[in-house]
Amino acid sequence: MFLSSKNNSKKVFLDFASSTPIDKGVLDKMESYNRKYFANPSAIYSDALASKEEIDIAKRDCAGLISCNPDEIIFTSGGTESNNLAILGLFESFKKKDFKPHIITTNIEHPSVLEVCREIEKRGGEVTYLEVSDEGLVSAEDVSKAIKKETILVSVMYANNEIGTIQPIKEISKIIKKWQSEEKTSLPYFHTDACQAVLYLSTDVSKIGVDMMTLDGLKMYGPRNTGILFVKKGIKLQPVIYGGGQQNGLRSGTEDVSSISGMAFAMEIANIHREKETQRLTSIRDYAIENILKTFKGSSLNGSAKNRLPNNISICFEDQDAEFLVIALDVVGISVSYSSSCRTLKEDSSSYVISALGKKECPSSSLRITLGRETKKNDLDYLVEKLKEIIK
Amino acid sequence: MFLSSKNNSKKVFLDFASSTPIDKGVLDKMESYNRKYFANPSAIYSDALASKEEIDIAKRDCAGLISCNPDEIIFTSGGTESNNLAILGLFESFKKKDFKPHIITTNIEHPSVLEVCREIEKRGGEVTYLEVSDEGLVSAEDVSKAIKKETILVSVMYANNEIGTIQPIKEISKIIKKWQSEEKTSLPYFHTDACQAVLYLSTDVSKIGVDMMTLDGLKMYGPRNTGILFVKKGIKLQPVIYGGGQQNGLRSGTEDVSSISGMAFAMEIANIHREKETQRLTSIRDYAIENILKTFKGSSLNGSAKNRLPNNISICFEDQDAEFLVIALDVVGISVSYSSSCRTLKEDSSSYVISALGKKECPSSSLRITLGRETKKNDLDYLVEKLKEIIK
Repeated sequence: MFLSSKNNSKKVFLDFASSTPIDKGVLDKMESYNRKYFANPSAIYSDALASKEEIDIAKRDCAGLISCNPDEIIFTSGGTESNNLAILGLFESFKKKDFKPHIITTNIEHPSVLEVCREIEKRGGEVTYLEVSDEGLVSAEDVSKAIKKETILVSVMYANNEIGTIQPIKEISKIIKKWQSEEKTSLPYFHTDACQAVLYLSTDVSKIGVDMMTLDGLKMYGPRNTGILFVKKGIKLQPVIYGGGQQNGLRSGTEDVSSISGMAFAMEIANIHREKETQRLTSIRDYAIENILKTFKGSSLNGSAKNRLPNNISICFEDQDAEFLVIALDVVGISVSYSSSCRTLKEDSSSYVISALGKKECPSSSLRITLGRETKKNDLDYLVEKLKEIIK
Repeated sequence: MFLSSKNNSKKVFLDFASSTPIDKGVLDKMESYNRKYFANPSAIYSDALASKEEIDIAKRDCAGLISCNPDEIIFTSGGTESNNLAILGLFESFKKKDFKPHIITTNIEHPSVLEVCREIEKRGGEVTYLEVSDEGLVSAEDVSKAIKKETILVSVMYANNEIGTIQPIKEISKIIKKWQSEEKTSLPYFHTDACQAVLYLSTDVSKIGVDMMTLDGLKMYGPRNTGILFVKKGIKLQPVIYGGGQQNGLRSGTEDVSSISGMAFAMEIANIHREKETQRLTSIRDYAIENILKTFKGSSLNGSAKNRLPNNISICFEDQDAEFLVIALDVVGISVSYSSSCRTLKEDSSSYVISALGKKECPSSSLRITLGRETKKNDLDYLVEKLKEIIK
């Protein structure tokens, strides 16, 4: 992606895991809907019913794309809220005197999962944070060992936002189903945060075998402030936000027709591009990884080389300060991250995800380079060229 | 507001309390910002810092318009979330073993306040729901009588969404300050839901004397999915949504530069129009009320005639079914409500707000007619003309 910067030098955006620009077609649709459907979808006159109808259409479209029932789609304000509703909402609906609900997750989840889990511990719940392998993979076997009678939920992200590792979701699903059938129970439920995965991997919920799934417009060339939580029929969640009872009572607040319709369109476009983009990006990703590892002495890839999102390159540069590298690259027009954006708010450039891999020298020396629809092979050549000038 | 409908008949929108169209200037700004500022404001490269800077500018602008510190502005997904964060967030931060926090509110608040209060009762808190007068006014004296040592919060809406009644906010503030000074305490805090008031009344927080205030883009010709909670420095809230720690840790989730900048612009425009619109609408509102009461035998105004939003006409039509009237008016192109939109989700056309006025025949026989920037006097003549054909 080349944009002319102030001094007319090249600009290369390589932080698509942090934010994607809104697709031009999605933006056009949203703009026309903003002008057309302003009536409150909860009212009963015809303009309001037209708003409501557009939301229903979007729900059906989204449901079709992930193979679920339209009633199982809840629109939220984004991935963070979806994760909160899934995990905190389930915990609150199970919390009872004399019962301590148990949740299993991993130690490399997004902060919107980890912070919710920490809050749940404060509220009297128990959480098991599974460790990942040095490749960043959680083992289905470990999930199996951790499940007990009190386990109400397993929440494992589909693909990691920092290192792009793809978790064995189908395998974990099988392990959970085995337990359920042996113990004659419908618990634990299985939730996955698929925000980073949706552009490249199948999000057919029946095929991957999840009961709840989080999606975010921001990460899929869609609208901001808009997310989805798929919740399988029969699962009882406590709301996180109370009020007028919109979204089957699970998410109060007037729905925005424009964002919701934009979200459905973004999902449709993602679906069309998925296979081709996966192929294209895997090829230039591997080309760039090889080039970087060959060029920089002591550099190493963080996370699995094989089970990895097509758009993720996470590299540890020995003895380098990642924050300095990000700033130095920014000067020459290249945007990358040193961990996830949400982490930078902690004013700590060290990554807990890379820490979890056991690479002791790497948490503050790693760059996250994430590719997108606009990324070309020569963008990555330019990155290596500039990195060579920065790292002597 | 005239739009051509399918059959080219006149269309008159008179439900501005439910939703306002986005101001053209705000929409233009949002569209250009959507294309320009897509970088995640939590990242650290220059495009991200530019996103962050726009959020800071919007914060400063909003703060200036309500006379508070920029740090005291929290952006949320709308009025509903703001009310949740203010009330549930405060309750959760005060909840302790051996202390039962007490909240005072009224029985005509918006569902996003009342449902939160009901949830708080389930979680072990105590709530006093003050009754209002037959004019829909809460008495500051009643607030005074209800305050006790355990009271952490008084939450009273600035103006009611169904009947437009303006509550004595300044008086209540004085009562609270008197208690605080006598008891040498900073409690209770005072929160107001100003979603309906902001277009017509001063929202200078130092002048009206509130500690927390809710605003919603949807109700002020601004962006959807966007609200504000003003939280005075020193007040500790527990978040409602956990995660990356955006918005001073109070509201996790990536911020949308476009909506936030649009919100600030909508507030600026509201500020410019406030005085003139208040004058203009008060005049046509009173003209229409007089016309309606004169024309329809047994009709009566719900709520105070004097302490009333300039854009609100709530009328009880004796022996009429409000739901039927809404549908019959819709057929001739006129959009009005029978209660608030959030209520219609309960599939119950009876209004708890009008019930609270003690008008026994009116909860299912009342129309809410709310005016806006596009409303002209002849729109209201058209309404009366069509109502005459419907009500024989």
